[in-house]
Amino acid sequence: MTVVAGGAAAARPQLIREINEKVLLDHIRRSGPISRTELAGLTGLSKPTVSAALGSLERTGLVHVTGQRTGVPGPAANLYEVRPEAGFVLGLDVGREYLRGGIADLAGTVRSRLSVRTKAVDAMARIQELVDLTATLAAEVGIEVTQLTQTVLGSPGVYDPRLDALTLTGRLSGWDSPATLAALRERFGPSLMIENDVDAAAIAERAHGHGRDVDSFAFVSVGTGIGMGLVLDGKLRHGSHGVAGEIGYLPFTEGSGSDPRDARKRGGFDASASAAAVVRAARRAGVRGASTAEKVFAAAVRGDALAAAVVAEEALLVAKAVCTVITVVDPDLIVLGGGIGQAPGFLEAVTKQLHQLAPVMPEVKASVLGTETVVAGCLAAGLDRAWQTLVGNSAG
Amino acid sequence: MTVVAGGAAAARPQLIREINEKVLLDHIRRSGPISRTELAGLTGLSKPTVSAALGSLERTGLVHVTGQRTGVPGPAANLYEVRPEAGFVLGLDVGREYLRGGIADLAGTVRSRLSVRTKAVDAMARIQELVDLTATLAAEVGIEVTQLTQTVLGSPGVYDPRLDALTLTGRLSGWDSPATLAALRERFGPSLMIENDVDAAAIAERAHGHGRDVDSFAFVSVGTGIGMGLVLDGKLRHGSHGVAGEIGYLPFTEGSGSDPRDARKRGGFDASASAAAVVRAARRAGVRGASTAEKVFAAAVRGDALAAAVVAEEALLVAKAVCTVITVVDPDLIVLGGGIGQAPGFLEAVTKQLHQLAPVMPEVKASVLGTETVVAGCLAAGLDRAWQTLVGNSAG
Repeated sequence: MTVVAGGAAAARPQLIREINEKVLLDHIRRSGPISRTELAGLTGLSKPTVSAALGSLERTGLVHVTGQRTGVPGPAANLYEVRPEAGFVLGLDVGREYLRGGIADLAGTVRSRLSVRTKAVDAMARIQELVDLTATLAAEVGIEVTQLTQTVLGSPGVYDPRLDALTLTGRLSGWDSPATLAALRERFGPSLMIENDVDAAAIAERAHGHGRDVDSFAFVSVGTGIGMGLVLDGKLRHGSHGVAGEIGYLPFTEGSGSDPRDARKRGGFDASASAAAVVRAARRAGVRGASTAEKVFAAAVRGDALAAAVVAEEALLVAKAVCTVITVVDPDLIVLGGGIGQAPGFLEAVTKQLHQLAPVMPEVKASVLGTETVVAGCLAAGLDRAWQTLVGNSAG
Repeated sequence: MTVVAGGAAAARPQLIREINEKVLLDHIRRSGPISRTELAGLTGLSKPTVSAALGSLERTGLVHVTGQRTGVPGPAANLYEVRPEAGFVLGLDVGREYLRGGIADLAGTVRSRLSVRTKAVDAMARIQELVDLTATLAAEVGIEVTQLTQTVLGSPGVYDPRLDALTLTGRLSGWDSPATLAALRERFGPSLMIENDVDAAAIAERAHGHGRDVDSFAFVSVGTGIGMGLVLDGKLRHGSHGVAGEIGYLPFTEGSGSDPRDARKRGGFDASASAAAVVRAARRAGVRGASTAEKVFAAAVRGDALAAAVVAEEALLVAKAVCTVITVVDPDLIVLGGGIGQAPGFLEAVTKQLHQLAPVMPEVKASVLGTETVVAGCLAAGLDRAWQTLVGNSAG
């Protein structure tokens, strides 16, 4: 579409065309294959206006004819859908032990997925591994990396504008250096968005999990790290300084696995209730073979009374955190996630403790999404952003 | 205005007239005395349309001519304003020791105010005192109680729809009985709204205090009782079950003034940090003459080291609660209120502790609003509701 020179009088129809195209694209995206007549009915636009807009969207490659509606009175009607290859979105999840990624097309279909164990010893090596992972994913889809419309990286921590760096990045060494963020931008280009990893998991929970049917929920993740993604009135809340949901900093220090040095670095609740704290508590209690939180939980299931006491204490700590969230924002639903949050039986143990503490009981559920949750959330956030970008460009 | 019979064709202009009148009233309410020409300019409505709508609003008594604009070219123009006497709002604050009330006219001017010490020994006597207080306030304004457009009662607790009663009402004995709510409705009529008292104080803080200039803030009130009003994106958040901000239930039980029985009744943080807990802590520490929290704070100011330690512990507990609010929702601003929250020097003591705990420091301020805060918030909430009611009725 060409912008006609000449100011306001010419700009007005241009603007109206843009708005019409956005409205139509939105309907096509949501409804799947749909005819010109159906679009006119849904939008209230005239058939000639719909035709002109569809023509423009076809020329820019955003929609295509996917088939014909037959078996209804009158001539067969062309059915339009989004052209899946009109855009690709990359979602990445950077963890301490694993790097994960996926590429989805514009229709939301995941075209490739990969998970690798990281061998990186510093931030720059980790970034190189992410770049290699991206190349592998793109090759599998059969596209060039330059064809990615949008990249979203799920990472521990939040963006600190004063430092122009990530901060509160937990156990990822060197990840909070300004050089790390600069290198990420350089390697992934201007479409890079960074989303807190637990917030990304909450977005996935909203798109695919328990969060679909409620207005507000808190996704409380307890595992190697601790965090929360908070959705209020359907929107993820980042907070005024980006730290909404950084519940590792809840001032709980009473756990028997607590560690003062860890508390200063990552917050009181993190130092009392993360996987490392569970291991410390188990060792202090004399549980045998307590090298990982998973093993402590397994010992408790097998009937080890010392391990069971550690797990019970962990449930009480998590119940206190959940009680805190209820007293502050009172959401419809709490979803427990993470290696500890989704451990068998843990939901029941937390719920039992919560009954003693909370002024009211919301629904509490364990997430049923797997290790791909952060990537799925990054893809969902990336698709939304890609749509905004593509529709803006096509109508420009 | 007469509704013309005859279905859709007649209803349409009626609806348009209603919308026009609402738009004009909103402008008149916000701008103060304003002319027909200015209103046409602001709204984009034609002058004849504005004239017709103003005529209708004058006939129903919602606006009146208050003077003339002179000294500008052309003939003098009538200036319209809201007729203050078109509606009256009653705000009430029911506390354990005091009952307070105020009546404002539709322009927002407070016409009478009163504060009385309660002698009531049960809920029904307290309700009778509120009724008497209302009669006195109305007499002072020179209106009948039946002329009140809207009544808002600021009360401890929240509404529980399962019980059709108030719950979590703290130290007001009998206030959580279904009979109390039924009696309140019977005595104050169908326009009665009940707002949590700390939420009402937060509404006042938004209308008149530190909350004016920010999108999100938490009003944390610490005194005889403990509570929080949370404003996010400019809106008070009540929560899915009405308990958002019931921070008395934060699971903090470590204070030296803590009391397990109190904790079961009113929550861990309330039992550790309310005025009663400060008195308990002071007595346990051997502070002399510690009959009220105020006296403990005064002793600390005078240099009593034992009292100073109790105050420091209280500041740490409140800092932990504030840290909790930051980690969960991360607002722009924290406002401390209540007898303890607004005590001299307490803000500084809390801020110092908070620096050690919180992942980020928002602005923290002490409220400068006085004992009339809850009434002021009830009046602000009541005025908004009265406007909706009156505009709806006038255009009906």
